[in-house]
Amino acid sequence: MKYRIEKDTMGEVKVPHDKYWGAQTERSKNNFKIGPAASMPIEIIEGFAYLKKAAAHANFDLGVLSEDKKEAISAVCDEILAGSLADQFPLVIWQTGSGTQSNMNVNEVIANRAQVLAGLQIGINEPFVKANDDVNKSQSSNDTFPTAMHIAAYKIVVEKTIPAVQQLRDTLHNKAIAFRDVVKIGRTHLMDATPLTLGQELSGYVAQLNFGIRALENTLDHLSQIALGGTAVGTGLNTPDGYDIKVAKYIAQFTGHPFVTATNKFEALAAHDALVETHGALKQLAVSLNKIANDIRMLASGPRSGIGELFIPENEPGSSIMPGKVNPTQCEALTMVCAQVLGNDVAISIGGMQGHYELNVFKPMIAANFLQSARLLADACLSFDVHCAQGIEPNYQRIAELVNNSLMLVTALNTKIGYYKSAEIAQLAHKNGTTLKEEAVRLGYVTDEEFDEWVRPKEMVGKLK
Amino acid sequence: MKYRIEKDTMGEVKVPHDKYWGAQTERSKNNFKIGPAASMPIEIIEGFAYLKKAAAHANFDLGVLSEDKKEAISAVCDEILAGSLADQFPLVIWQTGSGTQSNMNVNEVIANRAQVLAGLQIGINEPFVKANDDVNKSQSSNDTFPTAMHIAAYKIVVEKTIPAVQQLRDTLHNKAIAFRDVVKIGRTHLMDATPLTLGQELSGYVAQLNFGIRALENTLDHLSQIALGGTAVGTGLNTPDGYDIKVAKYIAQFTGHPFVTATNKFEALAAHDALVETHGALKQLAVSLNKIANDIRMLASGPRSGIGELFIPENEPGSSIMPGKVNPTQCEALTMVCAQVLGNDVAISIGGMQGHYELNVFKPMIAANFLQSARLLADACLSFDVHCAQGIEPNYQRIAELVNNSLMLVTALNTKIGYYKSAEIAQLAHKNGTTLKEEAVRLGYVTDEEFDEWVRPKEMVGKLK
Amino acid sequence: MKYRIEKDTMGEVKVPHDKYWGAQTERSKNNFKIGPAASMPIEIIEGFAYLKKAAAHANFDLGVLSEDKKEAISAVCDEILAGSLADQFPLVIWQTGSGTQSNMNVNEVIANRAQVLAGLQIGINEPFVKANDDVNKSQSSNDTFPTAMHIAAYKIVVEKTIPAVQQLRDTLHNKAIAFRDVVKIGRTHLMDATPLTLGQELSGYVAQLNFGIRALENTLDHLSQIALGGTAVGTGLNTPDGYDIKVAKYIAQFTGHPFVTATNKFEALAAHDALVETHGALKQLAVSLNKIANDIRMLASGPRSGIGELFIPENEPGSSIMPGKVNPTQCEALTMVCAQVLGNDVAISIGGMQGHYELNVFKPMIAANFLQSARLLADACLSFDVHCAQGIEPNYQRIAELVNNSLMLVTALNTKIGYYKSAEIAQLAHKNGTTLKEEAVRLGYVTDEEFDEWVRPKEMVGKLK
Amino acid sequence: MKYRIEKDTMGEVKVPHDKYWGAQTERSKNNFKIGPAASMPIEIIEGFAYLKKAAAHANFDLGVLSEDKKEAISAVCDEILAGSLADQFPLVIWQTGSGTQSNMNVNEVIANRAQVLAGLQIGINEPFVKANDDVNKSQSSNDTFPTAMHIAAYKIVVEKTIPAVQQLRDTLHNKAIAFRDVVKIGRTHLMDATPLTLGQELSGYVAQLNFGIRALENTLDHLSQIALGGTAVGTGLNTPDGYDIKVAKYIAQFTGHPFVTATNKFEALAAHDALVETHGALKQLAVSLNKIANDIRMLASGPRSGIGELFIPENEPGSSIMPGKVNPTQCEALTMVCAQVLGNDVAISIGGMQGHYELNVFKPMIAANFLQSARLLADACLSFDVHCAQGIEPNYQRIAELVNNSLMLVTALNTKIGYYKSAEIAQLAHKNGTTLKEEAVRLGYVTDEEFDEWVRPKEMVGKLK
Repeated sequence: MKYRIEKDTMGEVKVPHDKYWGAQTERSKNNFKIGPAASMPIEIIEGFAYLKKAAAHANFDLGVLSEDKKEAISAVCDEILAGSLADQFPLVIWQTGSGTQSNMNVNEVIANRAQVLAGLQIGINEPFVKANDDVNKSQSSNDTFPTAMHIAAYKIVVEKTIPAVQQLRDTLHNKAIAFRDVVKIGRTHLMDATPLTLGQELSGYVAQLNFGIRALENTLDHLSQIALGGTAVGTGLNTPDGYDIKVAKYIAQFTGHPFVTATNKFEALAAHDALVETHGALKQLAVSLNKIANDIRMLASGPRSGIGELFIPENEPGSSIMPGKVNPTQCEALTMVCAQVLGNDVAISIGGMQGHYELNVFKPMIAANFLQSARLLADACLSFDVHCAQGIEPNYQRIAELVNNSLMLVTALNTKIGYYKSAEIAQLAHKNGTTLKEEAVRLGYVTDEEFDEWVRPKEMVGKLK
Repeated sequence: MKYRIEKDTMGEVKVPHDKYWGAQTERSKNNFKIGPAASMPIEIIEGFAYLKKAAAHANFDLGVLSEDKKEAISAVCDEILAGSLADQFPLVIWQTGSGTQSNMNVNEVIANRAQVLAGLQIGINEPFVKANDDVNKSQSSNDTFPTAMHIAAYKIVVEKTIPAVQQLRDTLHNKAIAFRDVVKIGRTHLMDATPLTLGQELSGYVAQLNFGIRALENTLDHLSQIALGGTAVGTGLNTPDGYDIKVAKYIAQFTGHPFVTATNKFEALAAHDALVETHGALKQLAVSLNKIANDIRMLASGPRSGIGELFIPENEPGSSIMPGKVNPTQCEALTMVCAQVLGNDVAISIGGMQGHYELNVFKPMIAANFLQSARLLADACLSFDVHCAQGIEPNYQRIAELVNNSLMLVTALNTKIGYYKSAEIAQLAHKNGTTLKEEAVRLGYVTDEEFDEWVRPKEMVGKLK
Repeated sequence: MKYRIEKDTMGEVKVPHDKYWGAQTERSKNNFKIGPAASMPIEIIEGFAYLKKAAAHANFDLGVLSEDKKEAISAVCDEILAGSLADQFPLVIWQTGSGTQSNMNVNEVIANRAQVLAGLQIGINEPFVKANDDVNKSQSSNDTFPTAMHIAAYKIVVEKTIPAVQQLRDTLHNKAIAFRDVVKIGRTHLMDATPLTLGQELSGYVAQLNFGIRALENTLDHLSQIALGGTAVGTGLNTPDGYDIKVAKYIAQFTGHPFVTATNKFEALAAHDALVETHGALKQLAVSLNKIANDIRMLASGPRSGIGELFIPENEPGSSIMPGKVNPTQCEALTMVCAQVLGNDVAISIGGMQGHYELNVFKPMIAANFLQSARLLADACLSFDVHCAQGIEPNYQRIAELVNNSLMLVTALNTKIGYYKSAEIAQLAHKNGTTLKEEAVRLGYVTDEEFDEWVRPKEMVGKLK
Repeated sequence: MKYRIEKDTMGEVKVPHDKYWGAQTERSKNNFKIGPAASMPIEIIEGFAYLKKAAAHANFDLGVLSEDKKEAISAVCDEILAGSLADQFPLVIWQTGSGTQSNMNVNEVIANRAQVLAGLQIGINEPFVKANDDVNKSQSSNDTFPTAMHIAAYKIVVEKTIPAVQQLRDTLHNKAIAFRDVVKIGRTHLMDATPLTLGQELSGYVAQLNFGIRALENTLDHLSQIALGGTAVGTGLNTPDGYDIKVAKYIAQFTGHPFVTATNKFEALAAHDALVETHGALKQLAVSLNKIANDIRMLASGPRSGIGELFIPENEPGSSIMPGKVNPTQCEALTMVCAQVLGNDVAISIGGMQGHYELNVFKPMIAANFLQSARLLADACLSFDVHCAQGIEPNYQRIAELVNNSLMLVTALNTKIGYYKSAEIAQLAHKNGTTLKEEAVRLGYVTDEEFDEWVRPKEMVGKLK
């Protein structure tokens, strides 16, 4: 491989000839061979592109950066956002905990790419744009990395996770309306209970997702606050007056999201409670989705020896050995994602609780787990929606059989003959394998006509929509 | 011990003569000898007392319960809330996952106590108030237990946790103002960094707690929604019209908190996302408090071989072997609480994700963990506030020494001579054990006067309040 | 209340007249009002009693403590172990993270109680036995508290947890043998699969518990190593020669368990990896038990609209509103315990990872979580065994119906006619609601006789015991 | 793109012309667009290659597979292991929870690649080797996927994780020996305590890693047991006699690791306690490594305003804004990895606890988390060793200053003048900013000579090696 020589404050480093990165990126690449290469999430790199461009604009507006440098920096940022420099970011999550090396990776790539775009040669001509003094102007890793985290996190939650959950919510809501009159047995403790409608059952899932979406939205204000302008320790050293507010406005403009400068920059560097907070809401959604997916696979279990109340789409052969087997695979993928999100929440919380003094140094780990959760939940909700939820249909025959056969219909008699006599009826029917009506009449507690009038599954579900 | 005979639908049970509970409580006591006796949190019992009283009122208003029964039930509920029946609730957390047995415990105690208050004998006179048919009227365990959970959780968060966190926040805020001009070294990566003021450092903690309080408050709306009226599976079977709204109003009235009937009763029985959500915010506070307490003990470490920038109160001898040792024990208690809250969050999330069909059966475990976290955080914040935070004082001499000695003051030169020359100065001073000024002047990058004008710690902290 | 004055190195403190504890206990009681009083686990206090007695013996043997003091200390330790001083330990978990205050609580109680037993008056006569200089001789909180943790943890695991898991394992093993020939449908992905016997199914649970017990036993060696002799930082300062080995022998003798002195005292103070390790095995058991309990409640679900293959004991009425309902409550208690143990594991791991320098200061929190897990698992296994597992019986009729009806019996044809034709048969039977045989013969893939010879559920389970 | 038509039991699917996979892989690719493509860990694919080859050999030996098919299958497996088919496995972790689709992916690739190697055309000539009937012969996804998990997990732990931890352990051990006589201040509660040697301090870390390695090794027996031979539900349906033992022997032979057939196949399919168990040991190592890395960065903190007792290598510039800053970045990467492993442990435990009946369907998630942890720990230990631990050097001057200045040296006087007088000395010295000796002599408790004889840091560390 061909190399060129790059320099930083520690000396010279050999860098692959065809890459734009510089000495510090190369050092990090060599010093942190931990896990797969280039694992730093692309969303973080994109977050950097937005903020470097915004910083260049703010620096220019405030008179500390020339227009041609601003334009040059912006042009490379646009290339990064367009994806054309994707192979220039080789660093891993497991580097310095401040993400300094990825900040420098971006700074170096922008500087060297700008050099080339300006028709100059890297390492031969004088640098047109300098990595530290220009691209990183009015910045520190300590405020840029958290800013990139917030940009990436906010974007993925608002652009991907929430819409995906909403889409699934809408499907379940439509199903709840479609099946609002399908009376079925309820189950508590996994045991037969009083009836409800399938629509009511599904409405509970819809409510869970609605609460989850709202919980997620409640966290967005904190997440919209960005650290940029705090520089090294939160004081804003080496930034021009008005920079923090201005740069946030540019980020808001470029991303289309309502980012603002953080009310307290010290918090924004030293803690990542905003990500802890939003991921807490993602975890709540995972808790909800696990319940929903688990219910659906149990309700669809069978085909002959399970519960069998629902049909779900048959998407693929289910077994390499059992011919004709079909499985609730979308439920499985979704519940695996939910377990992952719960694990990620612990990793993030542990990272969040261990900031020291002016800086939390678990940034890349927190970011990576957050982005994985947000993306997996988004993808899994869409997959589950398209390949499972939209195809849910009741097994009307099975549902009717089970509800009509249920001993828990006896509950309707409580208000007529009291809990104890009702229990006696149910226990006898259970013991003798008979119907409630047979035992109720035989015991003389009700007449045939009374039973038929009082015990009507359809009327046992009607109190609440 | 003397016993009397109590009966339920399964038959007779011997119950201690001097207890009000009945057959089902006694069965649970015998069947669930798991962990310490009577571990079901008292807050849950009190939540039941509120709701049983409210149900009696609503049932009376709606014409399904007589006035004397309403009064009798209410009188016993008031006794429970006054604490005079505290030895009547022997059951454990680790019982049925619906908490049915604790619901019946409350029902039985109310019924039998009402019998005695009416001048009748338990087991000899006809029951005046019946446990299932009267005390539990228009209710099921499945809607009462979650209601008791929400009442208990809401009350403790609003009455204890939030005020305690606010008190600590206020103390830290006052300290931040008091020490706003104390310029000190900043530390990132645990390493010397550019200066900030002690007030700024503390303001970051204040911001964390403010965000945490807001996050907690954001969850209260969900928590204020109560399941009561849903009865067995959420349909409201066996409840009179208008009952759910009316009973919630009574609970709001009796507790003084804005409880309302749940918008979706199916969700309210089958999932406990509201508790997952609120505990997520408690966990966020734990993450914040751990950071704060950890910083403070590091800053106060010493007395001679640590960081030593802060003095904290010396509350007790710190060692059984090392004479004169004093330790940051309040920080330790608080960080242990934080670790516990993180563990509790996992337990609650796991419980929350495993609801089946119409009922989540991890209720008592979720409730117990939630209440422990809320109470421990409240108590630990107050303890930390009174015995540590209020007594924090700067070690002015040490702080001044460290900041003036710092190599990172060189950062102020970036905008004057560039990042690379600045780095050279710092590296040489580090290597030679000299001052920045010596090296800067020796290298000829700045004059003596320039250095003094440009490198002023006090002016390096001034950008942000 | 009446008080007396006690003193420590910080000055005077008022202590309740009828208590043996001294100044440092009282200070801790006042400074740490966090959570319920006296929450420090009794097992830790007992661990201290063993080690204080052992230290007195070793100190006497090595000539640094007089015989009468040794006897006096030992006598009080025996009283503690007999439970007669149970109200003398008022401190909480959430105190100093080294547990120093509980060490001093024990030291003070022993000293003052010895004073009384010697016929002397506390605070008036000269102290016969001194808390720091005699009871704590050759010790520090830093080596005693971890020693108490190991004694408590080892004892509860070996004396309670393992026997309880073994008892449940034995019951399940006996059931596996009893039901070895009950052929039933298998289920994978919750869907119908090829058959196995009920005995085989249960044997999987037995294997899980066997592996779990072995995993737990594998950790005992680490847990048997005790810190005592390391004193303040692990160097053994102020201990006589040979003390560490000797004191461990006494602890082994007094407890009847093979405790030995730690191979590395620095590790034993600064880290609690032994507890992390053993609790990891407890967590593994919780994972196993959750699977087992969950399976059993699903298999027993019904009575009419669930899986219904097992009968489990009906221990109590299951619903306050649904008459005659019976629920798998033991499964619920056990699974709640499992969730708790998973949460506790996180708390312990977080505590374990945060030791600083020569001392981990999350000791009481780690101990409390560990002991709760070990006890809850023990109690819950016994409860589940007695009230559920021992009463498990097959519903032979239901089991036979389901297996004979299953489409997955077609798998037996794979080796005769290939996977694809077999799948065709199963799919048609599923679609048409017919039997496999009908479709197989109609398609001409097998004859009537061949089908009967090849598709025999009983012969599909025979490969493995 | 060009396509060909592939078929499975559900019908036809278009597959990219240049890929060997078939219909089921393509279905999965389309149905599970969750997270990054091809996320199924390569180690799992390699595990499959080992087991498919072993199955072919065992099937041939037992007379159910022809020699040419055995050879053909083996040849493709060897190609997979050589990495030449790496682009043929496009599936994701978040698929069916049994991993069936990845099993079929491997089956299909082997079948089609064998077709080509045999000089035949895919989809035109009759299949020479069939995916289900030949490659998957005597197998099910349900026993192959867990077998692949165990092969992958065992290999990475034994080949990568353990050697890496051992390498770091050896380095720390060598440092402990090299610095065995460097007397330094101890710290407990982050506060000054009695002295120890740097070698002793490091020996605690060595002990932690030794215990961790042993804990990991203790789990290997369980992990060496493989499910293969259990087929669909553990009964071994459709396998020839003796197959399970034979196939395990081949796997042992091909991998060079002591794999054996599982003692209970039902457990091996329905639970993944072996992975839970081994990951528990990985988590223990993470707990240990976090403590070690955290200590080292605190001890190396500075350069001027921290603890500063250690020098660690300066590997890269530490700040984009603060010139000359160097940070403990290897400690940061390692502690981030530790947080990740703790999170992964929760995800794995949650997956492990949720098996249903005969199958756990969280397999790919469990596998992915396990392999990530094992690899990250291995890589991070090596990185930390090479770039940090090997370069640790004491700052002798600083160490000497701090220890000689320490008030806790007073502890040496306990056995001479008692704890109380010693405390008085320390408190006065602390208050007055004087030396212990000054106060001790002034108070008249010791003479000048006694002090010098009794208070010798070097003699306060000597009890234990």
